[in-house]
Amino acid sequence: MNKQQDLLSFLSTADKQFMPALSVDCVIFGFHENEMKVLLLKMKKADEWSLPGGFIYKNEDIERAAVRVLKERTGLDDIFLKQFHVFGDPARSNLAQARKRLEKHSKNFARDNFLLQRFVTVGFYALVDFFSANPMPDSLSEACIWWDLHHLPDLIMDHRHIFEKALETLRHQINHQPIGYNLLPEKFTMPELQKLYETILDKKLDRRNFQRRMLGYGILRRLKERRRGGAHKAPFLYSFNLRRYHLALEEGLQGGW
Amino acid sequence: MNKQQDLLSFLSTADKQFMPALSVDCVIFGFHENEMKVLLLKMKKADEWSLPGGFIYKNEDIERAAVRVLKERTGLDDIFLKQFHVFGDPARSNLAQARKRLEKHSKNFARDNFLLQRFVTVGFYALVDFFSANPMPDSLSEACIWWDLHHLPDLIMDHRHIFEKALETLRHQINHQPIGYNLLPEKFTMPELQKLYETILDKKLDRRNFQRRMLGYGILRRLKERRRGGAHKAPFLYSFNLRRYHLALEEGLQGGW
Repeated sequence: MNKQQDLLSFLSTADKQFMPALSVDCVIFGFHENEMKVLLLKMKKADEWSLPGGFIYKNEDIERAAVRVLKERTGLDDIFLKQFHVFGDPARSNLAQARKRLEKHSKNFARDNFLLQRFVTVGFYALVDFFSANPMPDSLSEACIWWDLHHLPDLIMDHRHIFEKALETLRHQINHQPIGYNLLPEKFTMPELQKLYETILDKKLDRRNFQRRMLGYGILRRLKERRRGGAHKAPFLYSFNLRRYHLALEEGLQGGW
Repeated sequence: MNKQQDLLSFLSTADKQFMPALSVDCVIFGFHENEMKVLLLKMKKADEWSLPGGFIYKNEDIERAAVRVLKERTGLDDIFLKQFHVFGDPARSNLAQARKRLEKHSKNFARDNFLLQRFVTVGFYALVDFFSANPMPDSLSEACIWWDLHHLPDLIMDHRHIFEKALETLRHQINHQPIGYNLLPEKFTMPELQKLYETILDKKLDRRNFQRRMLGYGILRRLKERRRGGAHKAPFLYSFNLRRYHLALEEGLQGGW
């Protein structure tokens, strides 16, 4: 695959195919070995990493564009994405930097090409099952991998800000919506669930309070099995009561008004 | 003011001035006489009403565009708007209908003018003080008035859907963030606060539970004064403890994790 040709052929039809001035960017969270991860792409010849993102076909719904872009860029399929914020600061589109990035690939692009305009981007985020995800880069990228939340590489444009806003949204959401389905395996222990919360919130929680509150939500089922193999007393296994879990997603935890 | 000239002069410069394909729309809630109100505009020669909305200058931040548009269309100043959703279904821009609307004003517009393209719109909402608001229409509109939430007129395009999504966001928010400042007068009674919640949620709440929960949030101050003039025992007056109120806005009610 010839990268320069890819880019030039993209630019030659982009104006006709895509909506002007608008893009989508996706913050994909996964949970693995007690660490929160984020999926990032590295474009060929780029110094920095980026969130998986792309453009919207002229007759395409924005939500569907986000799902398609994610599928194309990462190989991830059937992901439930949620839009969380529009990033509309004109300064986010640094055209001089965008021109430099283009010039690494080719000098033969038009001076007013599709990529050299101000873009407003719609941010989406998703929580995915680390193990069923099988990320792979598309022809424009050289890598697509999970990064630890606390050790992200340099990101292009305002992608660091977009990531932080997504994480802030997630931290807000965790106070009034259940979380964990899609992030944890089907059966999990209370300490594993607690670790997920601690990782997202980036702080230690009291073990007993956590357990009491979680059980109080009524979204967990305690299984008859226990986790085997540890040195301590084998802990109970839990799974989500999915009917109640989804009800709580709809109506919020803690009863609401 | 000549409406046809206004429109034609707008169209002649719109492409140069504004970002393509993107607009903002504002859902402005107020509270008056125990009813929730929404501010709507009627454009001249239009059959339907619309949310106050408009376009984004090529070098303008989207948040600032929303504030400016609201000021221009309604006379409302210094309103804190919050973006809540992007409406990106291509079907929302019905170009045949848009053409009909234009033809009511003039036959002399270009067939590919600025208004005849697909628009994605960013929805903003705000809660404002009914009494300090002094809405007035701009030169394109013939009316700008408050409508009762339960008796809205026909709205153009997908504005009914945008309104409903804003209301849903507000109902969700009321479960984990305080509400009432800016909607109620400085001093209010517990029944008045309860009525606000009931109106937003569109259901009756138990008086004792409401009072216990509200006081439990720690965001209210009970004043020494009471409301005079009623037939019953004069009820206590309350005001918000604004420091705690804003803290709860930041961190969510009910403590969080």
